[in-house]
Amino acid sequence: MTRPRSMRAAYQGSRGAFSDDAARAVLTGIGADPSGSVPCERFEDVFDAVRAGRVELGVVPVENTLAGSVQPTYDLLLERRLAIVDEHVQRIEHCLIAPPGVQLSALERVLSHPVALAQCRRFFAGRPDLRPVIADDTAGAVELIMKAPPGVDAAIASRRSAELYGARVLAEHLEDDPANFTRFLVIVRSGPKWREGRSRLADCPDEPSKTSIVLTLANRPGSLVGALQHFARRGVDLTMIESRPRHGRPFEYTFSIDLAGAVDEPAVVAALADLAGEALDVHVLGSYPRAAPVPEQLARQAAEPAA
Amino acid sequence: MTRPRSMRAAYQGSRGAFSDDAARAVLTGIGADPSGSVPCERFEDVFDAVRAGRVELGVVPVENTLAGSVQPTYDLLLERRLAIVDEHVQRIEHCLIAPPGVQLSALERVLSHPVALAQCRRFFAGRPDLRPVIADDTAGAVELIMKAPPGVDAAIASRRSAELYGARVLAEHLEDDPANFTRFLVIVRSGPKWREGRSRLADCPDEPSKTSIVLTLANRPGSLVGALQHFARRGVDLTMIESRPRHGRPFEYTFSIDLAGAVDEPAVVAALADLAGEALDVHVLGSYPRAAPVPEQLARQAAEPAA
Repeated sequence: MTRPRSMRAAYQGSRGAFSDDAARAVLTGIGADPSGSVPCERFEDVFDAVRAGRVELGVVPVENTLAGSVQPTYDLLLERRLAIVDEHVQRIEHCLIAPPGVQLSALERVLSHPVALAQCRRFFAGRPDLRPVIADDTAGAVELIMKAPPGVDAAIASRRSAELYGARVLAEHLEDDPANFTRFLVIVRSGPKWREGRSRLADCPDEPSKTSIVLTLANRPGSLVGALQHFARRGVDLTMIESRPRHGRPFEYTFSIDLAGAVDEPAVVAALADLAGEALDVHVLGSYPRAAPVPEQLARQAAEPAA
Repeated sequence: MTRPRSMRAAYQGSRGAFSDDAARAVLTGIGADPSGSVPCERFEDVFDAVRAGRVELGVVPVENTLAGSVQPTYDLLLERRLAIVDEHVQRIEHCLIAPPGVQLSALERVLSHPVALAQCRRFFAGRPDLRPVIADDTAGAVELIMKAPPGVDAAIASRRSAELYGARVLAEHLEDDPANFTRFLVIVRSGPKWREGRSRLADCPDEPSKTSIVLTLANRPGSLVGALQHFARRGVDLTMIESRPRHGRPFEYTFSIDLAGAVDEPAVVAALADLAGEALDVHVLGSYPRAAPVPEQLARQAAEPAA
């Protein structure tokens, strides 16, 4: 099977963002050139670029092991209904980054994304003289401190973002909890087309797989438990449930569910057929190989003291 | 039954925030003076004030019908495990607010909480000359524009916040979708003590009620579906499931579940007993009367054209 080397993968954020690292890893994983990652300002722009065919892939964060679900991604998955063809788990390691020549002792302010700042509470507790300042994204904060006259500002971001903007890493492993991973989904315009020779699932038919669906139920008592029972009866395991509000219908929800098994496995086929009989809508976003809960090598690394 | 008139209810935000409106409505609802609402800077501060006994009640937002779950509240409910004794649904109506004398045509910037700005997209689309600017909270934005020299800044916040800070309402119903409600939970330090004569549930034994639990399951295939099946078998309906990550255990979750029925109803007792046999932990946060999905009067109001 030949892989197109010139594939492009859109992500949200500036060059050097953790989403950029994820997009590059996904491209590398399918044999494409990692330089095909394409920055976008907003999550919507990633989905639009994929739908319009300006890029082949989108790589979007769906959950972080410390912060939880990324709600804007769930809303766009529900609205736009592009196909999911793979998932990727990315380790998140925060570095303290400053322009060359700036000393740790001279710093006064540290810029980063609010989630990154919240993940480094212990660092700020040990340096009460440093003031955390909210920025749009991690790599964007590095870009910002490199443009300002050097002096008192640092950023929290990835090692690669420091290299990219010519900044220096002053300290590593700033995160309170090393078990800090983000799960990304790989989205494409059309599932079946992607499958013709390019699906990761087709490459590894023996790996355990996963199916993502979007479920809309009638608003009557017992409908959620009733729907979930179809999975239980067929022995289909659920790995994730996320409820998102239905606009214009207060306190009604659309459920985004990940289940164990590919969409063509007999138990999954049967459960979805049962569901279709009673749900307002069942939409399959895609089946793909299940990433190891945490890649083994990363888990080992996370277990070691941060030093 | 006598009600203490001097009860205090802590909320997150500045005076005049939507959470302040909710805290005042909750106090009024139990016959206490609405002036007992107490502003706190962060969500953690609300939980701390309740736990330390500095206030009798906390009133915290748990979901909005447009934006979805309020994740920081769920994390604090899971961590702190204070008792839930009631819920309250608050209509969210956004006004455009400016200092007296400032004309609509003179405005250049509009300050508000990011969620409020996102709920008024249509307004900004019709006034492309106005720049949305992020502030910490809605009422705080009003406070800010009243302190600055009057000129080009407005805020998006509630009508009451305008009155409170001496500002003027220039336009009403800025929200794109009138079905904009936030559900708040009322938390106390100790559930049983609250029940002695003060529980809303004790006041209205015939109203349909609801129980909130926190569920931690062993990380093995089928555990979520297995646990939910106990509810299905006993005919207990679920109204909400929210998964939050377990720190230090990547891709494992604690589930926050709302179920129909009070904790002492036979079907609920039986389902929880079954669950206790296989879950790592089942913790009941409280039972309370179920707020009408949307208070009827508010729903009617929401259905009318915004004028």
